[in-house]
Amino acid sequence: MQGRFITFEGGEGVGKSTQVAASATWLRQQGIEVVLTREPGGTPRAERLRQILLERGDEPMPGSCELLLMFAARATHLANLVRPAVARGAWVLCDRFTDATYAYQGGGRGMPSSHIDALVQAVHPDYWPDLTVLLDAPVETGLARAHERNGANGPDRFETEQREFFERVREAYLARAAREPQRIRVVDASASVDAVQQQVRALLGALVAGR
Amino acid sequence: MQGRFITFEGGEGVGKSTQVAASATWLRQQGIEVVLTREPGGTPRAERLRQILLERGDEPMPGSCELLLMFAARATHLANLVRPAVARGAWVLCDRFTDATYAYQGGGRGMPSSHIDALVQAVHPDYWPDLTVLLDAPVETGLARAHERNGANGPDRFETEQREFFERVREAYLARAAREPQRIRVVDASASVDAVQQQVRALLGALVAGR
Repeated sequence: MQGRFITFEGGEGVGKSTQVAASATWLRQQGIEVVLTREPGGTPRAERLRQILLERGDEPMPGSCELLLMFAARATHLANLVRPAVARGAWVLCDRFTDATYAYQGGGRGMPSSHIDALVQAVHPDYWPDLTVLLDAPVETGLARAHERNGANGPDRFETEQREFFERVREAYLARAAREPQRIRVVDASASVDAVQQQVRALLGALVAGR
Repeated sequence: MQGRFITFEGGEGVGKSTQVAASATWLRQQGIEVVLTREPGGTPRAERLRQILLERGDEPMPGSCELLLMFAARATHLANLVRPAVARGAWVLCDRFTDATYAYQGGGRGMPSSHIDALVQAVHPDYWPDLTVLLDAPVETGLARAHERNGANGPDRFETEQREFFERVREAYLARAAREPQRIRVVDASASVDAVQQQVRALLGALVAGR
């Protein structure tokens, strides 16, 4: 069977985790081997890098450090989890990938796209998802949901960023979708969980039919 | 007072740690504030990245991952330790820096120099040591010393590399010194510890006189 690499993207609180999990359940019902993973993370070493990326601490994180850690985690994740799984015929569903780097570090933090392009060339020049589901919602909607979810633990370092940051992230995501409409499919994530999942299944269904 | 950034380089077992420590003692006797540090490492976050880089484990480390982690650690080390210390007038003595990346990841592992150049441009385009002391000894001499030193704990991941690897590392170091003879000064490290330290002090002394 033909393996697939499918990524889910979107800003804070758009419901990515819920949609990834529901998509996995549905694909498994179709008899497909599904591997669930996320970025940054997905392998033991990449998960340790994720911790370093997300924790708040006394040591300021230079933008270049953040960007390099993202791609370091990505390199080991692709080599040791994503590519082997796809090669044996599994469908890999991944919560965030390189489009998130362009959106967060590029659009959000203002790192030049050319720096990100150079790292893509070093880590996965010819390897991109077969499908990227971009869950899109107004920033206000997403932040309100994220705030609710994290009420107990408090926000992590990314979630404390200001609202303008998330507006830039959303714009960068939508700009990428406009440039690669075949790969990146925009789904309106302000609808109900079930309504969003119906849209996502329609996209996945086309791949299932074509396998 | 004029701060300085001084790096010590060389292969396994050339006596870097000993020479760095003795140099620090001598500089402090001259009334200079010395900060001792190392790469990868030197700050809490960079030391965690060092652990990830050096440990042996089940997850193979792609060359691109290793290279990106080195520069991620370097970015936070420069921003949060080296540059602030030099700016306040301290002399920073650092055990390994970017020359080691060219020697180990470039010469040793065969990563294209152009990849390393691109990361230098991203992390420290205009910032290089005032002086780099390259401790040079035949590979056999260095490996024998390193083997003795690590007898109890066993070698780490880098030290288990084959002999040919270390020959390539040494050649890459010497080639860099040949291209930048003003900054990178080669010291014969096969001599006794005291004789090597006399050569190192002569180099440091020129900087002390010029400050």
